[in-house]
Amino acid sequence: MTILPNFLMNRAALTPNRIALEMEDRSVTFLELYRNSLNLAGKLVELGVKRGDRISLFMANSLELVELLFALKNIGAITVLHNLRLTSKELSYQVEDAASRFILVDDERELGLKESKEFMGTQKIVPFSKVLQLKESELTPVEEFSLEEIDTIMYTSGTTGFPKGVKQTYGNHFWSATGSALNMGLHEEDCWLLAVPIFHISGLSILMRSVIYGMRVIIHKRFEAEAVHQDLMERQVSIVSVVTTMLSGLLEQLGSESYPPSFRCMLVGGGPVPKSVLEECMRKSIPVYQTYGMTETCSQIVTLSPDFSMSKVGSAGKALFPCQLKIMLDGMEVEPNETGEIVVKGPNVTTGYYNREESTSEAIQDGWLYTGDLGYVDEEGFLFVVDRRSDLIISGGENVYPAEIEAILVSHPSVKDAGVTGMPDNRWGQVPVAFVVSDGEKELLEEALLSFVREQLAGYKTPKKIYVVERLPRNASNKLMRRELLKMLPGGVGEH
Amino acid sequence: MTILPNFLMNRAALTPNRIALEMEDRSVTFLELYRNSLNLAGKLVELGVKRGDRISLFMANSLELVELLFALKNIGAITVLHNLRLTSKELSYQVEDAASRFILVDDERELGLKESKEFMGTQKIVPFSKVLQLKESELTPVEEFSLEEIDTIMYTSGTTGFPKGVKQTYGNHFWSATGSALNMGLHEEDCWLLAVPIFHISGLSILMRSVIYGMRVIIHKRFEAEAVHQDLMERQVSIVSVVTTMLSGLLEQLGSESYPPSFRCMLVGGGPVPKSVLEECMRKSIPVYQTYGMTETCSQIVTLSPDFSMSKVGSAGKALFPCQLKIMLDGMEVEPNETGEIVVKGPNVTTGYYNREESTSEAIQDGWLYTGDLGYVDEEGFLFVVDRRSDLIISGGENVYPAEIEAILVSHPSVKDAGVTGMPDNRWGQVPVAFVVSDGEKELLEEALLSFVREQLAGYKTPKKIYVVERLPRNASNKLMRRELLKMLPGGVGEH
Repeated sequence: MTILPNFLMNRAALTPNRIALEMEDRSVTFLELYRNSLNLAGKLVELGVKRGDRISLFMANSLELVELLFALKNIGAITVLHNLRLTSKELSYQVEDAASRFILVDDERELGLKESKEFMGTQKIVPFSKVLQLKESELTPVEEFSLEEIDTIMYTSGTTGFPKGVKQTYGNHFWSATGSALNMGLHEEDCWLLAVPIFHISGLSILMRSVIYGMRVIIHKRFEAEAVHQDLMERQVSIVSVVTTMLSGLLEQLGSESYPPSFRCMLVGGGPVPKSVLEECMRKSIPVYQTYGMTETCSQIVTLSPDFSMSKVGSAGKALFPCQLKIMLDGMEVEPNETGEIVVKGPNVTTGYYNREESTSEAIQDGWLYTGDLGYVDEEGFLFVVDRRSDLIISGGENVYPAEIEAILVSHPSVKDAGVTGMPDNRWGQVPVAFVVSDGEKELLEEALLSFVREQLAGYKTPKKIYVVERLPRNASNKLMRRELLKMLPGGVGEH
Repeated sequence: MTILPNFLMNRAALTPNRIALEMEDRSVTFLELYRNSLNLAGKLVELGVKRGDRISLFMANSLELVELLFALKNIGAITVLHNLRLTSKELSYQVEDAASRFILVDDERELGLKESKEFMGTQKIVPFSKVLQLKESELTPVEEFSLEEIDTIMYTSGTTGFPKGVKQTYGNHFWSATGSALNMGLHEEDCWLLAVPIFHISGLSILMRSVIYGMRVIIHKRFEAEAVHQDLMERQVSIVSVVTTMLSGLLEQLGSESYPPSFRCMLVGGGPVPKSVLEECMRKSIPVYQTYGMTETCSQIVTLSPDFSMSKVGSAGKALFPCQLKIMLDGMEVEPNETGEIVVKGPNVTTGYYNREESTSEAIQDGWLYTGDLGYVDEEGFLFVVDRRSDLIISGGENVYPAEIEAILVSHPSVKDAGVTGMPDNRWGQVPVAFVVSDGEKELLEEALLSFVREQLAGYKTPKKIYVVERLPRNASNKLMRRELLKMLPGGVGEH
C-alpha cells in the first residue's frame, strides 16, 4: 500500500505562493486554494458529508467546482462527476447507481432538476449557494492518501447501453500525471489551459497535474475559440488540451499568425484528427501531440513524444513510460502493422467499474484493459488508431454509445427495431443517425421519435436524422452490423 | 502490487536513439545500452546467475558497470553494490552477509582480493573480462518490474558498527526519480553529470533517472575538479551532483567565470555546506540546491526548491512531493524552530535492512524512518540539518561510523578503551580522530594502531590522529559521550 501526503495540502506547504488557478479576472495561489477547500470541507461536514460517502457534482467549470473537488478529498469522500448535458433521467440513473448522498449543483440548475418528473433524487439536491451559507464544522483534514483509495467516479456507457461508473483512484491520477510529465517534460513556467469540461477526465486530469506539478492552470467555463486563442497568444500558456473540432476552430483563429515560443504542446485527444488538419499544423509549426486515452485510463495512456511529433504524423505515439500496449486478435498478440484490438496496462488504468464485477472482469484481464478500439502498431512501435470500437461515436469530443440510443428508440410503441451509427460531419467529426423499422407514417414518425429521444437523452446523443427502413442489417446470429447501416442511406455514404 | 515495464527495455523502445551515456570518448544510445545489457545478461546466465540471486559488484564507474547493472535487472537478480575503498575484510563481511553468489570485479582488482588472507569469498570472484569471454545463454528478459521487488542492496554501517544491507526496491528508485523531477523539473535537453561513485546511492540514482526520464548522463570515473569543470563549461550539462569538498574544488576552477545558461542545478548533498561557500555561490549566481538524503531514502528526500534557492540559503528545503517530514523529540512532534530527530516517510524509503528484522523495526515505525540526525523546521516548513547523528562522521562525502573504528581499536591487545569522533577539516569537511586508553608507550602505540586499523578498514575510515588519554568521557550509564571527545584535544577544538 503506497501512501502519499494529501496532494493539495502538500502542494500548499511546498509552494504556497505560486499561482494555482486563473479564471476570468480571478486567480488563487495554492495556499489560497487549499484554505478555500478547507473552509468548504467544514461546510460540507456540517451538511452531513462523511468519509467514504459518494457525492455527486453536476456543475460547470468554475473555481468553486475546483474548490469543491479538493474539499471532498479533505474529508475523504468520493466525488462522482456527471456530464452537464445529461437529461434529468440520465442523471437520475447515475446518482442512483452510485448511491450518492448529495448532488451539488450550480444554483441555476436547481429548479430544472427539482421540477423534472424524471428526476428521482430531488431531496438530495443542494445548490452551491446553500453550501456557502452553512457554518463550518470542525474538521481534521485527511493528511494522507492511499494510492489504492477511490478518489473519483465518472460514468461511461458501453456496449450494453447502461452507463457504468469508472473508479479512479488517487494512484490512477498520480500515475497519469507522472506518465504525462515523463513524456512531455515539466517546466517551471508551465501553464496548462483548461477549456474542456472538468466532468470529463481530460479536464479533471489537468487539475490533478496542477497540484502534483505545482503548475498554473487557466480555466475557461467552456471552449470558445476566440477566447482560447486570445489566451494562447497573450497569457504565456505552454500546453492546451483540445479535441479535433476545437483544434479546427483554433486554426481558423490563428490565420497566418503563429503561437508565442512559450507555447509548447497542443495535446489533441478524443478521436482521430483528419490528416489535412495535421498537415496544416505542421505547416504552421504547431507542436501537436496526438494522444489516445479514455476515462478508464485516467486520461492519456499513449501519446506521441516530441521526438516524433513531426516524423510520425497521424500516430497516437507509444505507451507512456509507466504503461504498456499490445494489439490482440483472437487471443493472440499480432505482428506489427496487423490490425487488432488495442489492449493497455498501467498503474493509471482503473481497477474497474463501480459495483459491476462482471463488466470489470470482462474489460480487465490480468491487469490488461481491453479497449474494444481497433488499431495497429508499426515496426517502430507507434500506435495508429484505426477505428474506435464499432459501437462508439465520437461527436465533438463526447462519447456517444449507439446501444443507449437504440434502447430508447425501441421503447417507443411504433418502433419494431432500431440501429444507430455515426455519420461523418464537418463540424463535429461524427454525429449519430438512426435507422428504425416501423409500420407508422414515415414523416410523422421521424418528428415524434426525435422529440421522444430528446426528452430522455442529452442533446448531443439525439440522432441528427432518423430513417425508416424495411429491415436492419443483421448477421446470422441476429447481431446488428452497425458498420453496414450507412450503406442504407439514400445517398449512400458507404464505408468510412 | 504496482507493475511497470522493465525500465531500460521500455526506454529503449520509447526513445531508442537518444544518447543515454557518455564516458570519455564513448557514447551509447538507450537502444545500444539495452542491447549491451541483454548480451551481458546472456553471458551472466551462462555463468550461472539466476533470478533472485544476489550478485556483488566491486567495480569503479564505467560504462561496463552500468551495462552490468541493467543486465542483472534483465535476469531479475539483485545487485549488491560495494564501496571500492573497502578492505578485503570489510568486503568479505558484506558478501557473506548478502550471501552473494558471485562477486564481479574490475580485472585489476582480482589479484589483490585473491591474495588477501582476509578475503573469504575467493571462489566467487569473477573478473569482468571473464564474463565477456563467456558465450551467451538464451534468455527471456524480465519484461515487468513489480515495484515491491528488491532491485539493489547497499551497505551502511550504524550505531552497532556492523554494516547492514539497505534494501532498495524498484519502487524506491522510481519514486525517488519522480520526487526529484517534481521538484526540479524535467527538460528535454537535460544532462546530468555523474562524478560520484555509482556504488553510492548518489551515483546510482542518476542512472535510474537516466532511464526513467530518457536523459543523457556523462559519467566520470572519479571526481577531478578540472575535468568536471571543463565538462560543465563545454558539454551542455544541466545538473551535477556534488558533495561539499567537490563544490569547493569547482568554485576554485570557476574563478571569475560563470557557468553557461544550460547549467541549471548544482545538487549538493552529503553533509552540511559552510555558509561562506553558499555565499560565494550566490555571488556567482550558481543555482545551488541543497539536499538531504541517505541510502535508506534512495537519494534525496528533502531538497530546496528553485523558488527558495536564494531566500533560504543554508536550508535543505522541504520534503519532496511524495514524501513527508517531521521533527520528533521524546516521542512528540516538536514546534517550529525546536531541534529534534529528523523523521521521514515516503515511497522512496527502504522497506528495511536485508535479513535484519530488529534493526529494521527500530529504524522504521509506522512507515516513518527515524534518521538519528538532528534538525529543525522553521515557521515556513524549511528543514535545517543541525547535526548528523552523533555517531556519524561525513568525510569527503563518505559516511564514517565511529563504532566501526572503535571496535577495531579495542580488539588490539594494548587498548583498553577507545572513542572516535569527527574533527573539522578544511579539505574533507570532517576527518575521524581516535582517543584510546592504554598503558603502552604513547609514541609507539599510535603508529602501531594506525597500521593495525589501516589493514582492516578503508583508508577514509582510518583516524587522522590517535590520542592516548587517561580515560574517556562516559555518562552515568557508561555510555560514551562522543561529542565530548574533542574537548580532550591538546589545543581544545571545543564544541562544533
